[in-house]
Amino acid sequence: MPTPLPEDAIAAITHAVDTSFEKQVAFLQEIVRAPSLRGAEAGVQGIVAQALKARGFEVETYPVDAEALKDHPAYSPATIDYAGTFNVSGRKQPTGTSGRSLILNAHVDVVPTANPDHWTHPPFAAVREGDWLYGRGAGDMKAGLAANLFAVEAIEAAGFQLRAPLEFQSVIDEEVTGNGTAAAILRGASADAVLIPEPTDEDVIFANSGVIKFRITVQGVSAHPREPASGLSAIEAAFLVIDGLKALETRWNGEKHRHPGFDLLGNPASLNIGTIHGGEWPASIPFECKLEGRIGFYPGDKVADRIADFEKALESLCREDPRLAKAAPKLEWIGTCQAGYRLEEGSAAEEVLSAAHEQVTGSALRRSIMACYLDAALYMNHCDTPALTYGPLTRNIHGIDECVNLPSLKRVTRTIALFTARWCGISPIERPSG
Amino acid sequence: MPTPLPEDAIAAITHAVDTSFEKQVAFLQEIVRAPSLRGAEAGVQGIVAQALKARGFEVETYPVDAEALKDHPAYSPATIDYAGTFNVSGRKQPTGTSGRSLILNAHVDVVPTANPDHWTHPPFAAVREGDWLYGRGAGDMKAGLAANLFAVEAIEAAGFQLRAPLEFQSVIDEEVTGNGTAAAILRGASADAVLIPEPTDEDVIFANSGVIKFRITVQGVSAHPREPASGLSAIEAAFLVIDGLKALETRWNGEKHRHPGFDLLGNPASLNIGTIHGGEWPASIPFECKLEGRIGFYPGDKVADRIADFEKALESLCREDPRLAKAAPKLEWIGTCQAGYRLEEGSAAEEVLSAAHEQVTGSALRRSIMACYLDAALYMNHCDTPALTYGPLTRNIHGIDECVNLPSLKRVTRTIALFTARWCGISPIERPSG
Repeated sequence: MPTPLPEDAIAAITHAVDTSFEKQVAFLQEIVRAPSLRGAEAGVQGIVAQALKARGFEVETYPVDAEALKDHPAYSPATIDYAGTFNVSGRKQPTGTSGRSLILNAHVDVVPTANPDHWTHPPFAAVREGDWLYGRGAGDMKAGLAANLFAVEAIEAAGFQLRAPLEFQSVIDEEVTGNGTAAAILRGASADAVLIPEPTDEDVIFANSGVIKFRITVQGVSAHPREPASGLSAIEAAFLVIDGLKALETRWNGEKHRHPGFDLLGNPASLNIGTIHGGEWPASIPFECKLEGRIGFYPGDKVADRIADFEKALESLCREDPRLAKAAPKLEWIGTCQAGYRLEEGSAAEEVLSAAHEQVTGSALRRSIMACYLDAALYMNHCDTPALTYGPLTRNIHGIDECVNLPSLKRVTRTIALFTARWCGISPIERPSG
Repeated sequence: MPTPLPEDAIAAITHAVDTSFEKQVAFLQEIVRAPSLRGAEAGVQGIVAQALKARGFEVETYPVDAEALKDHPAYSPATIDYAGTFNVSGRKQPTGTSGRSLILNAHVDVVPTANPDHWTHPPFAAVREGDWLYGRGAGDMKAGLAANLFAVEAIEAAGFQLRAPLEFQSVIDEEVTGNGTAAAILRGASADAVLIPEPTDEDVIFANSGVIKFRITVQGVSAHPREPASGLSAIEAAFLVIDGLKALETRWNGEKHRHPGFDLLGNPASLNIGTIHGGEWPASIPFECKLEGRIGFYPGDKVADRIADFEKALESLCREDPRLAKAAPKLEWIGTCQAGYRLEEGSAAEEVLSAAHEQVTGSALRRSIMACYLDAALYMNHCDTPALTYGPLTRNIHGIDECVNLPSLKRVTRTIALFTARWCGISPIERPSG
């Protein structure tokens, strides 16, 4: 275990976080106002790169090369071209190092807003109202990125330098694939621990779900509705497929009692049909219908096994229902295909985080499950690196009126600063005298 | 009843149809090759106007003015702007008239092709293969339009002129609304009979369905799939709505025994969900889902009553299922809202058509039902004008590999020519002597 920080260092770092917190909120507003839907992260990445340079990081930007990634186990099938978008890396590399190295990771891509008219404030206006800052990505996870940045800044503002290498990773495309972080790993990113301030309501995540994301295209036989028997509606066929997948979800949920923590969730598999598009004409029997979705499973499960089970379920649907045999469902994997992880209790990284959290909040760090894909899984499963997912309190992530709680963000920034200082080790900055 | 045609006139007109049939097929190919999806009919209408002028029609083109139509009972709710498209009218107005006036009507709009890769021949290539001509619109109903045109040409080529006014109507937007023909009616179109050569497999249609076309938009509560209970999937809500509409379809089908002819159909109401679009992200619970479709009912039913029943069904779904109450289905009428018609046996128009059909084919004219919207309904229901829907044998209308049977088209053209000649009356064209 790294040595505890001296009391005066704790006080100085905490004070530095508090002092620059308004600046941090302004920075968060600036990056929320740079919409960064998948594939369109370049604008916000430019701001982040600039902010890192201004804070003395060695900054590099690099593309996500799907072709080069393709055979890496951290890769998930990509449906977009990554040309025009890029990852940002910022390093602090002390000359004489003694502590433990750290990666602070955050993704900048955000999910679509749904209908902006339903938002109380425009989704990219970054409106602050009382204790909350609103905006798509405010919680998931630009607040976390700002926390990483201002935590490191606070350590230096308090008069300290880190004793071990630190990499600040600002990555793209976490929401669909995780290929931003996969590209960082392929490039050689490595450290003694990783911290990713996803919106966790100040819990540390001890397990997440494996997730596979699919697209299924079914064919109908289009015909005039005056002769319904001569056609097969692709929309009807899509419903039959969804019903079949619901049976799979029920079956996978039935295994939850074997997975501590997941047994407490109502619906750990959480089949989600996220999009559906079918037909082209109200009065023609629809010819084609596409649906996209995700389904989750348990840490320890192999992705290949779950994929095989999913494929088998679809095949058996077609065997059992001649309509579906005719609809010939075509299955594609269109995003995350990654296993879940489990962070066993007692890791040094979690102990240090736990101590920092308790110093800041006065409460013990809660451990919880997040039944979704997390970039932490790539470090845990493919790099054998302890990855801490820990971030601020938020509301409505992926929903309408997403927002982050600012007092929580301040606490989390303090915690990350204290964690980083203790994990990496600190020494006073030598200032030129005179 | 108009006097039967003399045998030599029948022979001469029939011969004229046969003589120019290859020219007719070439013209049909030309208009199939002018794709005329809804709103984009201007190209083909230009060709039709030109063809009418070349045959001595007085040609006028005129816009469909939705604003002016709005309060006319023949109007159906339009979802597009008709700027840039237009109807074509061609008239033959004899100086001394004695017969009965006639409207030959055909629509030029076609439905989308679905995936063109699934067609044996490209949908707008108008490929002729053996007895069939392939293409979107070949059967529904450009073949009918060509039959109208070449039937009139044949009468004149045989040396006759019509004794009563004839209007050739080439109308737009039948497939969604019927507003092309509605605009013709608003403009004052009127005659003793109307003939519309829709693809009827050489039957005359004695009844069609009333049809209403709807769009329903349901709202979900979008959320991250890791917290499925906090969201409501708009796609799930759409399925619940569709299930409810299926119950309505079953109920409406249950009335079929009271409607002679419809009792023989398996599914006269034929609910069709033609399009569905929901969600924007595989891993977000979908926020909104839109579906569009149509449902039919029986001739004699009032549109307003069926609309009220439909609305009531949707309201009661929302009362019974709190999820649907939350999804707040929004209902819009987006196309045909028209009653069906029934053509009673014994009309003079049908007798004349029947005689012509028997002369050409040697078989009695079959009467059948078409359980869909037809422009004939507007003349029958709003103008009290007998409207004959009668046209060639086709395959796969609204489907993949739509095609029209050319021998059937030739027979139908002969029949329309003989019908027109007898209905309107003919006299020899006076040719300048010398």
